Amino acid sequence: MTSLAPWRQVLARSLHRNRALIYARYFQLATVRADGRPANRTVVFRGFLPESNQIAMITDRRSQKIEQIERNAKAEICWYFPKTREQFRLAGTLYIVDAGHLNESWQRAYHETWQKLSEAARAQFYGIAPSQPLAELIETEPKADSDAIPESFRLLVFEPKELDYLDLKTHPHDHHYHWLDESGEWQAEALTP
Amino acid sequence: MTSLAPWRQVLARSLHRNRALIYARYFQLATVRADGRPANRTVVFRGFLPESNQIAMITDRRSQKIEQIERNAKAEICWYFPKTREQFRLAGTLYIVDAGHLNESWQRAYHETWQKLSEAARAQFYGIAPSQPLAELIETEPKADSDAIPESFRLLVFEPKELDYLDLKTHPHDHHYHWLDESGEWQAEALTP
Repeated sequence: MTSLAPWRQVLARSLHRNRALIYARYFQLATVRADGRPANRTVVFRGFLPESNQIAMITDRRSQKIEQIERNAKAEICWYFPKTREQFRLAGTLYIVDAGHLNESWQRAYHETWQKLSEAARAQFYGIAPSQPLAELIETEPKADSDAIPESFRLLVFEPKELDYLDLKTHPHDHHYHWLDESGEWQAEALTP
Repeated sequence: MTSLAPWRQVLARSLHRNRALIYARYFQLATVRADGRPANRTVVFRGFLPESNQIAMITDRRSQKIEQIERNAKAEICWYFPKTREQFRLAGTLYIVDAGHLNESWQRAYHETWQKLSEAARAQFYGIAPSQPLAELIETEPKADSDAIPESFRLLVFEPKELDYLDLKTHPHDHHYHWLDESGEWQAEALTP
């Protein structure tokens, strides 16, 4: 268990200052494909896990990113805040969490994240598998008649190990590199813009 | 020489419809690091190369992405348009272009892109190397007393080979996959949302 990172508050403040923009809660998540090419897509921020630096996202078990993460769990989030003109580049590791995950606090987060989802967000997990050719026969997830979480639902937990922070509003730009050292403490140094 | 892609107009229209947002001209560029981890950062769109699907960006020879691209030129652009709620995921190859590049039209684009830059954008190529520890001795690029382009300036040309297009404003979401086939023609198919 690592301590709350010093940059955690900076990120929380950026989220607050950009709260008028719904899309300030979206970021771009890069992973690596089986053939060594990068993949990159927009993902919705689903909050921090309690008392941690861990970032929650959701995805469909049947999505391409699950395959990619199972092979190479390293990821980089690029999060640009348009109003405050700040960029957070967070490098770290992704963990796929399902209903039976051994980590109990992650299992709890899995359930709580589902509970907080809108009906529209939930619907996509009952429906047809994503990114399949429309012309072909497609796998479907039967709509449950209870409140049960559909089998296709996955929580993704991102554990940051490095942060490259850039503030484009300052001149010269404030640019800092933060990293988790061997003892689990966050270190930081100033970089040239 | 491949033909103008059918999606090229869709992207041009998105740029136009989102033109009130300066940051709609920024996208996230993912590459792969030497150690196999992904890298992801915000980059400014510098236009299409004439009569092509190629996307121009600029960077500093001394930046980390140059090292990454020299090793693995595969990249994925994730471009989210906030106003129209569209996402373009463009997979393809990056080419590093300097003043002496063999491709004449790229060499011309190299010069023209520099000419169009603001003084502020130009200044960063004369200055200290980017992303270096502030505390250490840092490499500097001497300010030229002529209009010569500084040696650190590089044009990046991105050649898209695939596009995953998602329109979040339509219900169900319009989702299409486009790819360049062996004969250099763009193909497309509809996907599930």
